[in-house]
Amino acid sequence: MQILFSGITTPIGFKAIGISSGIKKNNQLDLALLYSDVLCNCAGVFTKNIVKGHSLELARNNVKNGKCQAVFINSGNANACVGPIGYDDAISITKTISNYLKIDSNDVITGSTGVIGYRLPMDKINTSLKYACNNLSYNGGNLASKAIMTTDTFNKEYSIKFLINDNLVTISGMAKGSGMIQPNMATMIAILTTDANISSKLLNKALKYVVNKSFNKISIDGDTSVCDKTLILANGLSKCEEIIDNTPQYTQFVDALLEVSTELAKMITIDGEGATKLIEINVINANTQKDAELVAKAIANSPLVKTAFFGEDANWGRLLTAAGYSGATFNPLKTEIFIGSLKLFEKGVALTFDETKAKDILSKKEIKVTINFNDNNYSDTVWTCDFSYDYIKINAHYRT
Amino acid sequence: MQILFSGITTPIGFKAIGISSGIKKNNQLDLALLYSDVLCNCAGVFTKNIVKGHSLELARNNVKNGKCQAVFINSGNANACVGPIGYDDAISITKTISNYLKIDSNDVITGSTGVIGYRLPMDKINTSLKYACNNLSYNGGNLASKAIMTTDTFNKEYSIKFLINDNLVTISGMAKGSGMIQPNMATMIAILTTDANISSKLLNKALKYVVNKSFNKISIDGDTSVCDKTLILANGLSKCEEIIDNTPQYTQFVDALLEVSTELAKMITIDGEGATKLIEINVINANTQKDAELVAKAIANSPLVKTAFFGEDANWGRLLTAAGYSGATFNPLKTEIFIGSLKLFEKGVALTFDETKAKDILSKKEIKVTINFNDNNYSDTVWTCDFSYDYIKINAHYRT
Repeated sequence: MQILFSGITTPIGFKAIGISSGIKKNNQLDLALLYSDVLCNCAGVFTKNIVKGHSLELARNNVKNGKCQAVFINSGNANACVGPIGYDDAISITKTISNYLKIDSNDVITGSTGVIGYRLPMDKINTSLKYACNNLSYNGGNLASKAIMTTDTFNKEYSIKFLINDNLVTISGMAKGSGMIQPNMATMIAILTTDANISSKLLNKALKYVVNKSFNKISIDGDTSVCDKTLILANGLSKCEEIIDNTPQYTQFVDALLEVSTELAKMITIDGEGATKLIEINVINANTQKDAELVAKAIANSPLVKTAFFGEDANWGRLLTAAGYSGATFNPLKTEIFIGSLKLFEKGVALTFDETKAKDILSKKEIKVTINFNDNNYSDTVWTCDFSYDYIKINAHYRT
Repeated sequence: MQILFSGITTPIGFKAIGISSGIKKNNQLDLALLYSDVLCNCAGVFTKNIVKGHSLELARNNVKNGKCQAVFINSGNANACVGPIGYDDAISITKTISNYLKIDSNDVITGSTGVIGYRLPMDKINTSLKYACNNLSYNGGNLASKAIMTTDTFNKEYSIKFLINDNLVTISGMAKGSGMIQPNMATMIAILTTDANISSKLLNKALKYVVNKSFNKISIDGDTSVCDKTLILANGLSKCEEIIDNTPQYTQFVDALLEVSTELAKMITIDGEGATKLIEINVINANTQKDAELVAKAIANSPLVKTAFFGEDANWGRLLTAAGYSGATFNPLKTEIFIGSLKLFEKGVALTFDETKAKDILSKKEIKVTINFNDNNYSDTVWTCDFSYDYIKINAHYRT
């Protein structure tokens, strides 16, 4: 298995581009286009927010038939809450792309991310789409990953190449964060591409499974945006035979897809607004799966926990407190709490621990926390980040 | 009805004191004692956190018989997670007080708030208890309210005097916050006193009702601590006849108790760690009561909403987004969003609004937000505060 820090144009037959269309100021990249040489099978997972962006509404409709050949994403404007014209604008974008690329407009999937409540500048977008369609490139993935960024501080790409029955298959992805992220779907935009040969039905099954274990397991501030989605396109251009359910080949595919998704999810977390640390919360030996998930989520979302990590303070009390109000059932007298390998709490009692060692662990950029309930064998893992002064700074004046 | 900014010794027959026992550094007040000249009826509501402090565990036991004559509260140390010795220490405190005040040790209720995981300095406390018991005063409420503070920036007291059948009755209270506050009980310490004549059973009913509409309706950072409680003591020393359930007198009593509790709850919110603004979230015309509560809570707990208010940014999008992921059902196309009297969003569409007027409203210290779903007639009100740089500063290094 080969890991590459390249993106969505790594699999065979995918072209992309990222350009500046003028939605954002100062010639920043803000429009990404992805295209496959052949029609792809596809699947998508969308925000559960009851309020949905117009570009996302259209994407949900166009993904339903399981076919897709191009993906449009703009940043800087979410195309949300602007009234019926917002949906019309999204349709107009698919028609323009369909016209330039000679594909069915129903096979174009749209996405928008940024400020909500303002209409897209359609003139600028139409002009830019012509250029974008004419300049797609087999090396364009990197530019596309930069064009979907909002408050992200770095672009996020990851690829894996692996063999299925001696045939090379590639799975790649790009993603953007970075605020408004919490477990429970698709709290960001991620676009995954593969040259594997797999039906849209099975893609859908694989994507749902993988999203629940990766993108739904990260928390930045507990908010879920109205425009977020994960999409996967499979064009079948590798020489690999069709991947069938319940086979070792399917397991290989899912494992690789999970790795790509988990790595992208972790990149989103560490790039959380103002974040300085990536914190992995492991809840083990919980009484039920639900208990493990409730505790992991409560800890990951607690502002008090997150500020303590920012301060590099071994505040096990806040971890225990968050577990306590999570709604999970557990016995504090059987509970152990670790930061890294250092045990801070055991059997209902705070332990005396080496503060220097704690400081050493907490000064790292990646920190593992383990809550062991010593009960049943259910577990959950969630990734979160710390809350810093910069989180406040970035979010206090976002709209202005 | 007369409103007084005085505290727990305002009703007839209550004495108190607040002293420095040495639990906190630099001679800060850290030990409060309340005493009634006669045995009181009492009721309490306690944290729902599965992890509970030792002083609180004993308080829950001692409140069960509905009788109380003295309340001990220390700040600076939560007496939590120190093992069985923590409960023994709490018992020892009640015995010492019982000895000095010649009352039953089961009628002493204990509370502790502060850092968890460290044993109480019992030598210092024992020495101080002798002084405290000997120096109780009918004017001591103010000092007591200062001695229960942790990260609070001001002490919190409120009293109401009103007539029941021409007899003057007083209800008073003191409270402390200020982090770790969210709806769903007793996420702080509040001690209420009254000279009304009312059974402990009816006190319990009144307290539960009132706490749900006041202390459970505030949110600072969504965390619920392990040591929090609300307690009410009624000593019956006013000339008022016994208050009976389902009478106008009971309604009068509950209304007054609600006012005292709401005012204390709002003081806790505005004194939220680092808070610069008190924000009242009104959800009206929701489809169900549960929907109204889910939306109000999601908005009040959203770090993105709270940072936007700190930045005085009319970011209605974050209000709508939080409503959208709250789990409530509503129709965005019927929804209206107001900040103060200014409508920002209507029928699924962002409105063009006067930014100067918005800035004017948002620059105030108290801000009202209204979400109108224009559906059924259910509503809920929650108070929250903004998230500032100081929240991070206070909480990043609390333990150290």
